[in-house]
Amino acid sequence: MQTRLRSALIGATAIAVAGAVHAADLTPKEQILTRQAGYSFMSWNMGKIKSNLEGNFSQPQVQAAAEAIAGIANSGMGALYGPGTDQDIDDVKTRVKPELFTNQEEVGEVARNFIEAADNMAEVAAFGDEAEVKKAFGELGESCKACHDKFRKD
Amino acid sequence: MQTRLRSALIGATAIAVAGAVHAADLTPKEQILTRQAGYSFMSWNMGKIKSNLEGNFSQPQVQAAAEAIAGIANSGMGALYGPGTDQDIDDVKTRVKPELFTNQEEVGEVARNFIEAADNMAEVAAFGDEAEVKKAFGELGESCKACHDKFRKD
Repeated sequence: MQTRLRSALIGATAIAVAGAVHAADLTPKEQILTRQAGYSFMSWNMGKIKSNLEGNFSQPQVQAAAEAIAGIANSGMGALYGPGTDQDIDDVKTRVKPELFTNQEEVGEVARNFIEAADNMAEVAAFGDEAEVKKAFGELGESCKACHDKFRKD
Repeated sequence: MQTRLRSALIGATAIAVAGAVHAADLTPKEQILTRQAGYSFMSWNMGKIKSNLEGNFSQPQVQAAAEAIAGIANSGMGALYGPGTDQDIDDVKTRVKPELFTNQEEVGEVARNFIEAADNMAEVAAFGDEAEVKKAFGELGESCKACHDKFRKD
């Protein structure tokens, strides 16, 4: 429980930190590409956890994947949604909906839930109980989907 | 010292784990795109640490960036260098040199050094002494460069 609280606090800090990141260092096009890189890399690691749950379960592999996801989730990706990143730029397409840039309250909520689920996944993976991993993985997937449903075009 | 040892062991495990990842789940083109996503995301986080060292130093931001890098570094990226990923595929270009696929011993060495430097960076960032962070960041940069010099085309 204490660990859960710690995670929630870290999550909250990560959100706060995001605003302080100097997005200005990256052009809008680079911001879109970088956020897509983060999601792609997390997706690969989600796939590894899924395939572990469907096949031979390797605790070290699941833990490594979960820590990569948690590291990316906590890196302050909010800074990659700066001005001008709400639309396609040249050949760089984005599926983000305009609502993401106007509905700060709901964005904050889905982001906090996602970071909390990613932190929980990493904690559970460190112990390696397969049933617990499955539960945490399901919750993490739900937190991804919640954001996709609200803020990503089909 | 004990923590350093733990990191080294985790690093060694990560290398071992890499071989067990089912790269077969991704096509060669997806493997190239996914490894490039990992490097792009690490590069963004390296840039954040650099800008913290050059400007106002924010320990939470540096720690978050360092943990993202360490998470990605330990995720078993070796699995993204499967058969067929040694050359451009359609519009997906790769700068990898053929030597990466034949010189396993040297690849293992640069990979281990990189993971160790990334783990050290994350540990040092958690304490947040700016001089120590600067030193760890320099070492991490050197470990990136060592691989680029040997295994990446200009």
